[in-house]
Amino acid sequence: MKNDVKVDVINFGDELLLGLRDNSHLTYLGRELKRHGLEIRRNLVVRDDPDEIREVFPRVWSDADLVITTGGLGPTSDDLSREIIAEALGLKLEFVESVRMAMEERFALQGRPVSANNLKQCYVLEGAEVLANPNGTAPGVFLKLDGKILVMLPGPGDELRPMFEERVLPRLQEEDYFAFEEQYLQLRSFGIGESILENKLRPVLKSHPELKIGYCAHQGLVDVRLSLANGSGNLANLHETGEQCMELLGEDFVCFGSESLPEIALAYLRAHEQKLAVAESCTGGLLASAFTDIPGASETFAGSVVCYHEEAKIEHLGIPECILRQHDVVSAETAVAMATGAAEKFSADYGLSTTGLAGPGGGSGKEPVGTVYFGLHTPAGAWSHRVQFSGDRLVVKARAVNTAIDWLRRKITKYQMHDAFSSINYNMGAGI
Amino acid sequence: MKNDVKVDVINFGDELLLGLRDNSHLTYLGRELKRHGLEIRRNLVVRDDPDEIREVFPRVWSDADLVITTGGLGPTSDDLSREIIAEALGLKLEFVESVRMAMEERFALQGRPVSANNLKQCYVLEGAEVLANPNGTAPGVFLKLDGKILVMLPGPGDELRPMFEERVLPRLQEEDYFAFEEQYLQLRSFGIGESILENKLRPVLKSHPELKIGYCAHQGLVDVRLSLANGSGNLANLHETGEQCMELLGEDFVCFGSESLPEIALAYLRAHEQKLAVAESCTGGLLASAFTDIPGASETFAGSVVCYHEEAKIEHLGIPECILRQHDVVSAETAVAMATGAAEKFSADYGLSTTGLAGPGGGSGKEPVGTVYFGLHTPAGAWSHRVQFSGDRLVVKARAVNTAIDWLRRKITKYQMHDAFSSINYNMGAGI
Repeated sequence: MKNDVKVDVINFGDELLLGLRDNSHLTYLGRELKRHGLEIRRNLVVRDDPDEIREVFPRVWSDADLVITTGGLGPTSDDLSREIIAEALGLKLEFVESVRMAMEERFALQGRPVSANNLKQCYVLEGAEVLANPNGTAPGVFLKLDGKILVMLPGPGDELRPMFEERVLPRLQEEDYFAFEEQYLQLRSFGIGESILENKLRPVLKSHPELKIGYCAHQGLVDVRLSLANGSGNLANLHETGEQCMELLGEDFVCFGSESLPEIALAYLRAHEQKLAVAESCTGGLLASAFTDIPGASETFAGSVVCYHEEAKIEHLGIPECILRQHDVVSAETAVAMATGAAEKFSADYGLSTTGLAGPGGGSGKEPVGTVYFGLHTPAGAWSHRVQFSGDRLVVKARAVNTAIDWLRRKITKYQMHDAFSSINYNMGAGI
Repeated sequence: MKNDVKVDVINFGDELLLGLRDNSHLTYLGRELKRHGLEIRRNLVVRDDPDEIREVFPRVWSDADLVITTGGLGPTSDDLSREIIAEALGLKLEFVESVRMAMEERFALQGRPVSANNLKQCYVLEGAEVLANPNGTAPGVFLKLDGKILVMLPGPGDELRPMFEERVLPRLQEEDYFAFEEQYLQLRSFGIGESILENKLRPVLKSHPELKIGYCAHQGLVDVRLSLANGSGNLANLHETGEQCMELLGEDFVCFGSESLPEIALAYLRAHEQKLAVAESCTGGLLASAFTDIPGASETFAGSVVCYHEEAKIEHLGIPECILRQHDVVSAETAVAMATGAAEKFSADYGLSTTGLAGPGGGSGKEPVGTVYFGLHTPAGAWSHRVQFSGDRLVVKARAVNTAIDWLRRKITKYQMHDAFSSINYNMGAGI
């Protein structure tokens, strides 16, 4: 198998540079290649402009082993990459009759004629393999030249993805660019920052210089990715190292792979046939929404009440008026009363609540904006805790939701420790 | 004003190349720069690897007028861009005491100590302006050197965005990189697909060849952007054209700019001192969350009940058992009863509800996955309507939320403008 393959991706398209669309092709190609042990070295997004392509393409081609381009193969006048790249490689464009025939068939089905613009799409780099496009008119290109490979893919995602999976990946494997085995492991943690996490894992990771380590933080979650350089792999060792890291992380360890916090919490509850209800103030529905994002949530998730006013808390959650009079709405006591009220109202085993100040207004010296109290009602008792978040309203909401669910996860796994860890697999699901 | 500014964006981050995250920073920066008449020329995504940064950065810097980098400023050992860029520019890194003090204050609030790793973040390029980061530890950098500008931004989006808007844009304007007058106008529409929208607007837009027109669709919303080439503008004409487009769109016109649907709906309700309550089934909290994302929502938004089970619907929303027995849970009758129940329970003027099948399981021939009934209770009466969505669970949730709020928007504006209702014709094809 080839080692240290230099893979560069070029995306053509003004819309990517003008903020009209996310570059989801890069995310897709990065994930698919990584699944097969290849890493994109660099990504370049350039305008649909002949001079730009002329300047950028030869430089990329001269220094890479595999170049993948997306876009610029359409029929309109701003789709020029085909012509400029042929020029840069010193190759002619050849008219390919089979492409024209497929195009005519396709257009006949839709009852429209093939235009002169479309005929442009029948010209392919000489010596290249044509990648048929069942979902559109622009064929793809797979070209071996000077010991390198050039892959040109059409811009629309529903044309690019099947072509890449069904045609390009098998060809790259034939050319020995990768083995069909996944080469990495991801650990997900919650509640500790990147730098503390790095310190915690150092004792294990310093003795594994063969591993590449990457961190990725999002709203309280930090993912650690351990990967082997292409082809150097011993997957059993990788998994053993992963388990040592898990031990070091203790309850900050969430899972291997990329299961979400609500997925994990709901799976535990489902396994024990228990139900959860939610009462929300500052998270305003987002906590319930995180649970209901999970298919099949209705088996376990009973419901939620979003109370934005004191009276609503008293009426819908049965919170004694004296609690709200004696304590603040944003307080440990109210949080617990909300959690217990939600569990009772929805006849659930667990109740989870949030009450706080998402901002921008409403803070005070004692309880500044970003203060959130969490309440948790369980069959074994009820607790609260307080966290001070920074960030704007949406960030406070998102972090409070993750923190609430992670707290629930920790509490459940503590009680159900004996079978909790036996159900952990190396779940390397589609999201990775 | 400077013309033909060459703007290059470099994103540092393995996670972008390995498919762990969309490069949303590029989308954000592209949009924000374009708002001010600047276009990104090229975008380069590179690994957090010293050799890579060493190779790529000087080449980009030598050929651009404005270079914006994102990421690589964190505290871990893979965050190296600071050091390598200093080396490439021949500048020293200087320890900035004010950054350390801000960091200590921030950590003290969270009750954790400043680690040695974090102290790395206090080193800044000599001669650069420090951009304070109220939402994180890594400060940003604004450097003028050799007639060019380098801007370095932290990786997390909630740190990058406020820093860019509050610190970087005003500085770029001071340096005469753009006028602060927006060179474009955005119209937001809802409920019609891109191609129908294009046909509707053609009568006006065909007579304005000087305008660049861009479309961007997201979950039922379609934004139309009319823009003038940098500096060539006549803003008065642009606004006049925008108003002609608004007329053509009728009630499908949502707003100029980018106000969200919940912002618009809540603003109408607030102006009339009316309150809204919500009852959700298939949207599972996301509808309430969309309203509570808006600062000050509590003045107008009374609360929500998320009912995932029939019994909960009966108990919490006072839906007569006979309705649920006679009709389906997913039905027009249930939707209306939920909306009315929510309005009554929370003493609100308006009640808005969703009940449907978000999938993947649970569909039938009569009501396939993606079916959603909406209910609306108003002071003038109660209505329901049914929409069939395509897409996965999360897409159905998101589209149902937008559709519900847009329906509320249409009803309120009609009611408050003409005191009359008429039926709404939704055309929710798969492409919208």
